[in-house]
Amino acid sequence: MSGNTLGNLFAVTNFGESHGPAIGCVIDGCPPGLALDAQDIQPDLDRRRPGTSQFVTQRNEADRVEILSGVYEGQTTGAPICLLIGNTDQRSHDYSDVAQTFRPGHADYTYWKKYGVRDPRGGGRASARLSAPTVAAGAVAKKWLLQQCGTTFRACLRQLGEIAIAFEDWAHVAGNPFFAPVADVSALQDYLGALRKRGDSCGARLHVQARGVPVGLGDPLYDRLDADIAKAMMGLNAVKGVEIGDGFASATHHGSTHGDALLPGGRFETNHDGGVLGGISTGQDLCVNVAVKPTSSILVPRQSVDVHDAPVQVLTRGRHDPCVGIRAAPILEALLALVVMEHALRQRALRGHL
Amino acid sequence: MSGNTLGNLFAVTNFGESHGPAIGCVIDGCPPGLALDAQDIQPDLDRRRPGTSQFVTQRNEADRVEILSGVYEGQTTGAPICLLIGNTDQRSHDYSDVAQTFRPGHADYTYWKKYGVRDPRGGGRASARLSAPTVAAGAVAKKWLLQQCGTTFRACLRQLGEIAIAFEDWAHVAGNPFFAPVADVSALQDYLGALRKRGDSCGARLHVQARGVPVGLGDPLYDRLDADIAKAMMGLNAVKGVEIGDGFASATHHGSTHGDALLPGGRFETNHDGGVLGGISTGQDLCVNVAVKPTSSILVPRQSVDVHDAPVQVLTRGRHDPCVGIRAAPILEALLALVVMEHALRQRALRGHL
Amino acid sequence: MSGNTLGNLFAVTNFGESHGPAIGCVIDGCPPGLALDAQDIQPDLDRRRPGTSQFVTQRNEADRVEILSGVYEGQTTGAPICLLIGNTDQRSHDYSDVAQTFRPGHADYTYWKKYGVRDPRGGGRASARLSAPTVAAGAVAKKWLLQQCGTTFRACLRQLGEIAIAFEDWAHVAGNPFFAPVADVSALQDYLGALRKRGDSCGARLHVQARGVPVGLGDPLYDRLDADIAKAMMGLNAVKGVEIGDGFASATHHGSTHGDALLPGGRFETNHDGGVLGGISTGQDLCVNVAVKPTSSILVPRQSVDVHDAPVQVLTRGRHDPCVGIRAAPILEALLALVVMEHALRQRALRGHL
Amino acid sequence: MSGNTLGNLFAVTNFGESHGPAIGCVIDGCPPGLALDAQDIQPDLDRRRPGTSQFVTQRNEADRVEILSGVYEGQTTGAPICLLIGNTDQRSHDYSDVAQTFRPGHADYTYWKKYGVRDPRGGGRASARLSAPTVAAGAVAKKWLLQQCGTTFRACLRQLGEIAIAFEDWAHVAGNPFFAPVADVSALQDYLGALRKRGDSCGARLHVQARGVPVGLGDPLYDRLDADIAKAMMGLNAVKGVEIGDGFASATHHGSTHGDALLPGGRFETNHDGGVLGGISTGQDLCVNVAVKPTSSILVPRQSVDVHDAPVQVLTRGRHDPCVGIRAAPILEALLALVVMEHALRQRALRGHL
Repeated sequence: MSGNTLGNLFAVTNFGESHGPAIGCVIDGCPPGLALDAQDIQPDLDRRRPGTSQFVTQRNEADRVEILSGVYEGQTTGAPICLLIGNTDQRSHDYSDVAQTFRPGHADYTYWKKYGVRDPRGGGRASARLSAPTVAAGAVAKKWLLQQCGTTFRACLRQLGEIAIAFEDWAHVAGNPFFAPVADVSALQDYLGALRKRGDSCGARLHVQARGVPVGLGDPLYDRLDADIAKAMMGLNAVKGVEIGDGFASATHHGSTHGDALLPGGRFETNHDGGVLGGISTGQDLCVNVAVKPTSSILVPRQSVDVHDAPVQVLTRGRHDPCVGIRAAPILEALLALVVMEHALRQRALRGHL
Repeated sequence: MSGNTLGNLFAVTNFGESHGPAIGCVIDGCPPGLALDAQDIQPDLDRRRPGTSQFVTQRNEADRVEILSGVYEGQTTGAPICLLIGNTDQRSHDYSDVAQTFRPGHADYTYWKKYGVRDPRGGGRASARLSAPTVAAGAVAKKWLLQQCGTTFRACLRQLGEIAIAFEDWAHVAGNPFFAPVADVSALQDYLGALRKRGDSCGARLHVQARGVPVGLGDPLYDRLDADIAKAMMGLNAVKGVEIGDGFASATHHGSTHGDALLPGGRFETNHDGGVLGGISTGQDLCVNVAVKPTSSILVPRQSVDVHDAPVQVLTRGRHDPCVGIRAAPILEALLALVVMEHALRQRALRGHL
Repeated sequence: MSGNTLGNLFAVTNFGESHGPAIGCVIDGCPPGLALDAQDIQPDLDRRRPGTSQFVTQRNEADRVEILSGVYEGQTTGAPICLLIGNTDQRSHDYSDVAQTFRPGHADYTYWKKYGVRDPRGGGRASARLSAPTVAAGAVAKKWLLQQCGTTFRACLRQLGEIAIAFEDWAHVAGNPFFAPVADVSALQDYLGALRKRGDSCGARLHVQARGVPVGLGDPLYDRLDADIAKAMMGLNAVKGVEIGDGFASATHHGSTHGDALLPGGRFETNHDGGVLGGISTGQDLCVNVAVKPTSSILVPRQSVDVHDAPVQVLTRGRHDPCVGIRAAPILEALLALVVMEHALRQRALRGHL
Repeated sequence: MSGNTLGNLFAVTNFGESHGPAIGCVIDGCPPGLALDAQDIQPDLDRRRPGTSQFVTQRNEADRVEILSGVYEGQTTGAPICLLIGNTDQRSHDYSDVAQTFRPGHADYTYWKKYGVRDPRGGGRASARLSAPTVAAGAVAKKWLLQQCGTTFRACLRQLGEIAIAFEDWAHVAGNPFFAPVADVSALQDYLGALRKRGDSCGARLHVQARGVPVGLGDPLYDRLDADIAKAMMGLNAVKGVEIGDGFASATHHGSTHGDALLPGGRFETNHDGGVLGGISTGQDLCVNVAVKPTSSILVPRQSVDVHDAPVQVLTRGRHDPCVGIRAAPILEALLALVVMEHALRQRALRGHL
């Protein structure tokens, strides 16, 4: 419980730093008998990895995952699965300058105050790179859930800075580097291109959902399914808001129209509640929205202090995403899958079946 | 970890049902030597308790808390503190009808599907009444945090259905039954009165904050302070959205203005990030917004099904809050206090001091 | 995880002090649908309760258990089960003397040093009385395991001070106040009578076993079934040693005779390993031995110090068991049942069935 | 909590199989600012590693540990520390035969029944080799405890099969391959030599202790220090018994002599209770005895069954320790250190200091 483990029954322990020799995770509690090799995991890592378009950081990481344990003759054994991802493009340069100052909006200051020591290389432990092992673990959860329950996960971009993105079709998401559900992304390209030229960054809003979720997942009072989803999502770098179903719009709703009418056959007329009632899954689509703040590492000079509490101007050179939300879609899917997986195993413990 | 415990080092285990003999909680991990008696807890329970105005449920519960253990000669001993609150106004009537149908928007259906059995009396375990033990535990955390760190907590209503509530002054909050930070609440009274007459309900949005939070609380990667706040808040009945700092507005921001500039002396120019950077407290005010959906138990008839999957019309008689958000302020304070308390103890474990 | 919870999926949180208003526990994670009322629990409490013979403390406690939550219409709902046991015979006398000195062999000194404050009334939290809620929770686990798996639990006394007790028949155990598996207990009566007259106490050794345990329970590497049994047993007051199967005798064995030969049909020729291999149940009887040290509260004066570190002579008046091992049999059964229950639920999570 | 993590605040998650590419662990919760490099860990690994004498398995593993994360510029950062140990001498041969049968006394049968799938290469996950990462993690705990509290750990062999080993001097332990506290080990050499010639194995008994333990560690009711020690020790391969202090001998003792008299200055006249009272450390030496059963992998043919439940004779070729107890001393030290470390951090959380 020292902070780097997500889940209890499907427990993912994350380790590594942005510019250390490797990053990775250990999955403890994966049910035995699941067919698994690196090719089940690699596609999601590839969707998240940097350097794939001009709109994301140019750091060039292959992000090849290696399964170190827990799999024998192509199937999981029930033993812990250690997934290792080498860091190959950690440019060795002088971090002594970076180490002395705190970037506004970044974790520099709080890591320094919390731990009394800080690994400044590429953001160290606070780097968004550490979401890669989460994505890898999520791929394992996704495969099991698909096989056992038919559950699927998908995410898309719905807002990029000032630009709201209409929802046209899920089919478009894989066709552009923005994970946008629209056919024409030229407006997004222009917007982000201009932003980069100014050395600035922007925030984003994403939608993530799960289909085919078993009914009955979630453990009120406190470990409600929506509560654990909120924790997983808010725990991702730069996330500042989480909604389930209608989210903040619910504040303005009336009970006479908000509550989703039940129909025979386990169906509902609407899904204002986003697939959760009383903290337990209804079997409808789990619908989650997430707000991401702008990247803190920008070329625009900002006011700050150094480790001696003296005022300084900070300007972050190096390779950074102008909007971290762009690559967040596969991460959000993974986080949602990890939460659903955890609660699926819990429900098996409680009832003996899903 | 079976769902009814919040926190690990300051672990609050909640028990009871709305219409059982009693509700309560056990706090395990409260530091010894804290002066504590029931009068430290009762005021927050009184702020939350029903029956105090015409705008909340008329159920008449004194909500007197009794300390069963963990306190000797007026101070905590380090042993578990069991807090018991009797249920005195659980009207015994016939629940056979309620037990056969599922209210839209309520947890009836999901409890039934999850557990295969359901206590229908007054919502059973899913009742908002179960937030009382959380409030009681939160009062203990608040007292310790105030004494050790000078931390304080407060919350207010910012939206009631369609009505946005301006922020005038914290001083107004205690002066009206809505926890609204405004001098004149006549518009809220009129709105809610009309709503009740129609047998309808509405949602709400609240703001909760902590001042004087020690810098350095939170355990990334996963147990970030904001992540645990999101979990605690989203775990409360009817909550559908959580924001830290600027929340969803951050999606539209630019890095050149969003990141809070650092000033000497541990100060910041702004607080867009709501007191958390990289999942760790900055020492600024912790600022959280919460969206609450409309009460599901309404007098307006709704379409649903019964336990035999046959279509029925459901209409909920009985005593219900037209807006559960009204009484949520002390609960949100308690939840925030419990999360800060947990992380304060964690930080002491890690560093040996706060 | 603050120390007063045993188990994760079937999590028992214990609270109360020997001379407070009540003791009890909260069981979180009990599967729904189990028929349960107080009469399922009371018999085991009665077997453990004091005052039933001249060989145990004369404190007169009815130990009536009350179910406060988690049961509706005679069956468990999946919600936390709070079990409350009132303290009725907590004689109010002056503890100021006791509070100033530390009894040798007792927890007085360590509680004082650990917490900086101590509830001295009847041993406070360190009293053996706190095993009553454990026994109550164990009764719930026993009932579920009997119904679901046909598992049964039993324990008996095998050594009382210098007297080794032969094993004659399980049938004798219920027929004498010593839980001894022998027909004639006159030697034990004489021994203990003489000991009491001298104001002294003695240790004991007990055997506890489970039959009909499902094969496959236990989670190596660390949460092995035998490891969790050892923790539960060593966690009971006064226990100083735990053995599984042949225990310490194994140290002198040879591999050519120790390893239990396997026979068709899931049977084994012998059971030197006590029903556990590699930390996982074999399906054979789980066999555990436990050593209990002599009661520390005795009438014989002993050398000690007071809270000011000054030498004092200590002599404990009041009502105490001359051998706490005598009443330990139902407690050991309960502890073993709680561990088996926890791992049965874990195995259901991992495999979907037992 | 899926079984492969020991500790909560200093949480060690173990991964790997005997013949996979690597074994290792992740330590989450190590306080920042501890000077650490591989040379702090390697000596304990070298003490445990195989192939160092004719009395242990001839498998030749360098057991070089690599620190993958959590250390920057020679000191811990508070981030998870991943320790990796390559498997270099995993002879690739045909395991199809081994995979079909169950060795008596070994975990083959129970892994098969529990997981439905088994990695048979060199014992897979059940191999004693998996204690290496535990030893590595223990070395980190030892270093921190030595620096912060002056705590030290040591262990020795006290029984080898039928041979009881007198205690002469701790100084001898490092001077012979048996970790025996005696000057002359010729009797042990002769005994073990003869045993190996017969293809047989034997059990052992060891003593492990900690000096300079802070007073006040341990969390009753359930997470007592002795309880957690018992769990850690019984969780090691082949361990069948654990004693604290006088252990099983306590069963025959009287209260008038057993209870350790207190002397001024935090001293005690004796240490029958082995440094723990009421589950909390007294500040005296923590004294633990452990019984190890004979190695199950022997050249003597044994009766068993195969995966089709047909009777077979099993005889284990390959490289095995005739007594796993010989190399257990550094492992027991590590386990004891991990438990003390965990409780030291817990006590800091509770009280703010040690």
